[in-house]
Amino acid sequence: MITRLSRLFLRTLRDDPADAEVPSHKLLVRAGYVRRVAPGIYSWLPLGLRVLRQVENVVREEMDAMGAQEISLPSLLPREPYETTNRWTEYGDGLFRLQDRKNADYLLGPTHEELFALTVKGEYNSYKDLPVVLYQIQTKYRDEERPRAGILRGREFIMKDSYSFDLDEGGLKNSYRAHRDAYQRIFERLGVKYVIVAATSGAMGGSASEEFLAESPVGEDTYVRSEESGYAANVEAVVTPAPAPLPVDGLPAAVVHDTPGTPTIATLVEWANAAGVLDRPVTAADTLKNVMVKLRHPDGKSEIIGIGIPGDREVDDKRLGAAVEPAEVELLTDADFAANPFLIKGYIGPKAMQDNGVRYLVDPRVGTGTGWITGADVSGKHAVGLVAGRDFTPDGTIEAAEVRDGDPSPDGQGTLVSARGIEIGHIFQLGNKYTDAFEVDVLGENGKPVRLTMGSYGIGVSRMVAVIAEQQHDDKGLRWPSEVAPFDVHVVIANKDDAARTGAEQVVAGLHARGLDVLFDDRTASPGVKFKDAELLGMPWILVIGRGWAEGKVELRDRFTGEVTEIAADSAVDAVVAKIRA
Amino acid sequence: MITRLSRLFLRTLRDDPADAEVPSHKLLVRAGYVRRVAPGIYSWLPLGLRVLRQVENVVREEMDAMGAQEISLPSLLPREPYETTNRWTEYGDGLFRLQDRKNADYLLGPTHEELFALTVKGEYNSYKDLPVVLYQIQTKYRDEERPRAGILRGREFIMKDSYSFDLDEGGLKNSYRAHRDAYQRIFERLGVKYVIVAATSGAMGGSASEEFLAESPVGEDTYVRSEESGYAANVEAVVTPAPAPLPVDGLPAAVVHDTPGTPTIATLVEWANAAGVLDRPVTAADTLKNVMVKLRHPDGKSEIIGIGIPGDREVDDKRLGAAVEPAEVELLTDADFAANPFLIKGYIGPKAMQDNGVRYLVDPRVGTGTGWITGADVSGKHAVGLVAGRDFTPDGTIEAAEVRDGDPSPDGQGTLVSARGIEIGHIFQLGNKYTDAFEVDVLGENGKPVRLTMGSYGIGVSRMVAVIAEQQHDDKGLRWPSEVAPFDVHVVIANKDDAARTGAEQVVAGLHARGLDVLFDDRTASPGVKFKDAELLGMPWILVIGRGWAEGKVELRDRFTGEVTEIAADSAVDAVVAKIRA
Repeated sequence: MITRLSRLFLRTLRDDPADAEVPSHKLLVRAGYVRRVAPGIYSWLPLGLRVLRQVENVVREEMDAMGAQEISLPSLLPREPYETTNRWTEYGDGLFRLQDRKNADYLLGPTHEELFALTVKGEYNSYKDLPVVLYQIQTKYRDEERPRAGILRGREFIMKDSYSFDLDEGGLKNSYRAHRDAYQRIFERLGVKYVIVAATSGAMGGSASEEFLAESPVGEDTYVRSEESGYAANVEAVVTPAPAPLPVDGLPAAVVHDTPGTPTIATLVEWANAAGVLDRPVTAADTLKNVMVKLRHPDGKSEIIGIGIPGDREVDDKRLGAAVEPAEVELLTDADFAANPFLIKGYIGPKAMQDNGVRYLVDPRVGTGTGWITGADVSGKHAVGLVAGRDFTPDGTIEAAEVRDGDPSPDGQGTLVSARGIEIGHIFQLGNKYTDAFEVDVLGENGKPVRLTMGSYGIGVSRMVAVIAEQQHDDKGLRWPSEVAPFDVHVVIANKDDAARTGAEQVVAGLHARGLDVLFDDRTASPGVKFKDAELLGMPWILVIGRGWAEGKVELRDRFTGEVTEIAADSAVDAVVAKIRA
Repeated sequence: MITRLSRLFLRTLRDDPADAEVPSHKLLVRAGYVRRVAPGIYSWLPLGLRVLRQVENVVREEMDAMGAQEISLPSLLPREPYETTNRWTEYGDGLFRLQDRKNADYLLGPTHEELFALTVKGEYNSYKDLPVVLYQIQTKYRDEERPRAGILRGREFIMKDSYSFDLDEGGLKNSYRAHRDAYQRIFERLGVKYVIVAATSGAMGGSASEEFLAESPVGEDTYVRSEESGYAANVEAVVTPAPAPLPVDGLPAAVVHDTPGTPTIATLVEWANAAGVLDRPVTAADTLKNVMVKLRHPDGKSEIIGIGIPGDREVDDKRLGAAVEPAEVELLTDADFAANPFLIKGYIGPKAMQDNGVRYLVDPRVGTGTGWITGADVSGKHAVGLVAGRDFTPDGTIEAAEVRDGDPSPDGQGTLVSARGIEIGHIFQLGNKYTDAFEVDVLGENGKPVRLTMGSYGIGVSRMVAVIAEQQHDDKGLRWPSEVAPFDVHVVIANKDDAARTGAEQVVAGLHARGLDVLFDDRTASPGVKFKDAELLGMPWILVIGRGWAEGKVELRDRFTGEVTEIAADSAVDAVVAKIRA
């Protein structure tokens, strides 16, 4: 295909759009790839649409190659199935809801677990039909609170979502593994730098789950990795290595001290050092901070729990939220404290909680045999040398404390450092959540019904365009790997004489005849303007036909390395084809 | 590609779905092409999606070939642009409206004139950029009052919509003609039998417009055609040939008669024949029926008008509606009659209307010099021999009378017969309606701003799948022309012996190697079940590998003609490729 810039529906912009902060957003708008229509809602202009379709094709090819079958479900969906799984409510403001002319409730699909479960239930009824993996590449809708960075986090966007249905756990694991492998091939082909991180499952329900994060400083997801090993995880998924239990025999008995005016960790540490209660300097890590939160359980009941973490760490809200899911975390009100007078603010200890039936969960570092300075449940008093497993026995552990750079890696190899990433893929072993909700059974080999087990797997297809732009751009503009570039080569006429123009037409025709997609800058603009546009638009190869034409020479520029090669005009087609097919 | 029926996500149904009335709906459901999710909202299963994509590709190729450029606008659209053109209101209940989390109004796009006009305004500013044709193939939404016949009239559906922007009327006509030609190529390639009919422009505004109707007895659109000429038109667009003016000199003067108890045409004709008022038998066609309607104009004002049509015809509501557009038609209330006492029900004549400033529009047959029996504006009295152009002068003509089989064709060749069709395409010369609304100007060659003129053009892409099914099916099932068939050939193993199975695998691999898409029925089901499914699914060619294999023979069946050809097994691949590429 030959596309002439003189006719292409495109206008490049010199200035960054006022609302853009991240490079991909600025460049995709400046280069005329996308245009904003409303917050988080974009149009795809010709070049942008071509990249999007290339990404789609890579995804489609790899999904087909793994044996997944493409179907297409509606975006406009009736309320009932989402009511059945409670997601009509759970999604909260994130769901676009509407009514039709008969006042029936509908939603715009944010993800399609319900409908795929129902679709499989509708067609299949025998174990012989399984396993099956179905997918679609489709427009999705989420009413994001803060749509962001152009197409990076939109409210209308394109996803590949697939769903596996298996007879048993082993089958689910195979389907999950097949997706994991396919995703690696996809991101490899797209030239994306990414990590796979252990993830919590979020609102989707289910158990095992991993996220694919594109490495990027503009990413919204924080993850940690061990530089020494391949370990990487969402902060929510980091499991704190628990210390081996220590002997409690021979430890000195706990002593309650008067500690007036020490309601904070800082004031407590100051007191402890002044009082010399340990035979070494006391730090915040020697104190045990007890944080009270209220859990709202899915059945509507609420419960106050205590969380004990070393005093040198804060509670991480995202980790806490993930740890108590599906319950939601609320803060205690003054009324809660009034109703539970045994909770003495600033001096809460394990004892009063446990005496009063409040569940007490501790950080894994608060292991058996560790001793702490902590509240004594009396205003102005703290206990020193309170030993876990002797003086108090927690009801369990909880992963709620913040993860910090330098923490030991859960795999035992090296220490963790944090980094930022953009979620580009997510794979879940859902299990029975949706197949239970809709009773998706088939007749098993033994004649008895088998409840299917399900996986769900997503790739952000439109987001990927922004991710590639984000990872590959330089200060001059976009740079597209050949696999997704809108055109294979950008041919620029950089000379006004007729011979160069005629020559360019011949070269372009030659490239086209060899099956290449050519963007042909046949405009009358100055070479300077054309070179700037070529760099902004970002095709991987730029062929310049200019002054050298008279001496039988053209220039081939590598947009990634910046390298310029002078090649003979009469072998230009062969040379370009060789580079591109290299 | 080889797709094995043993793994394909497909279950064919023996029985017609309860809610299906038209053949395409029954067969597309029975053959597992589509599944209903909600009224007018369908899922596309693997085979259906493949046909849909094939249709899309044909449309895309022809749009690209005419120089149109593909872009993709959102489906979720902000209210403001549609408010500017008043379509937010005009669309009435047909528009899906919703609010986001901030209570901002949105709609699901039914068609995108507003957004394309704004998109061009955003990018282009010089006459040098024009003309441009942009298109998208995209999911659209209309909250139909009566979604019908499966995907034939859905509420979520796929359309190709394109929009042309030109500097002047001549340019618009070129863009319109280019679309008309491309549409003919598209429907030709899709094997659709269709007619092009002159159409009124409907709610879209603008002037010239034609519809492409697929001929089908299940169609919802009625059109008329002349068997003698190529003329075809929507009933709304039929222009009644006006008789040449007749001389009024020498015609007898009109006479008012007492006609008690003759408020209807039938009673009036009976009286006229009994009274012998003409020197020949009187028929309803000799009477002039005056129908009063109230027009609600877009500015909110209402106006009572009179419509005079020959008494043997009824007013056709659709033709009347189209004739008075953008005004809307309402019925007169008792209060209206009370407020206009000169309107004597059953005896209304032209005189009182015109004396009282009521516009009086007549059917073109009520030409100068024609004489009529009509009301005399007094209860129980009619005038006989009231001559148009002498005794009354209408304020104009109106195309409101019904069109009947046998009416003369407007092109003067032959007579009209009515037929039914399904709208598959629509092309409009919109003119300035949208470019005025958004002030879409570019700088002209002379340095002055030029207001662009716009065309809009649609093809029902998902509907086309139903239309092809509707026109091509037979009593055994679907039949897909090669251009849109999900697979080139359907290979059936009709024998259990291992040799046949091994042979079939070889033949299938051979077909695949030659670039064909093969649907391979490798199931263990009986040959009868397989043949029935093959007929139902409708691939154009069915290759049966069965008992003959042992003697080196296979059978090639033509799904359209039913013809069965025995071919040598060892040349089966060549033979099938030759047939398909013929």
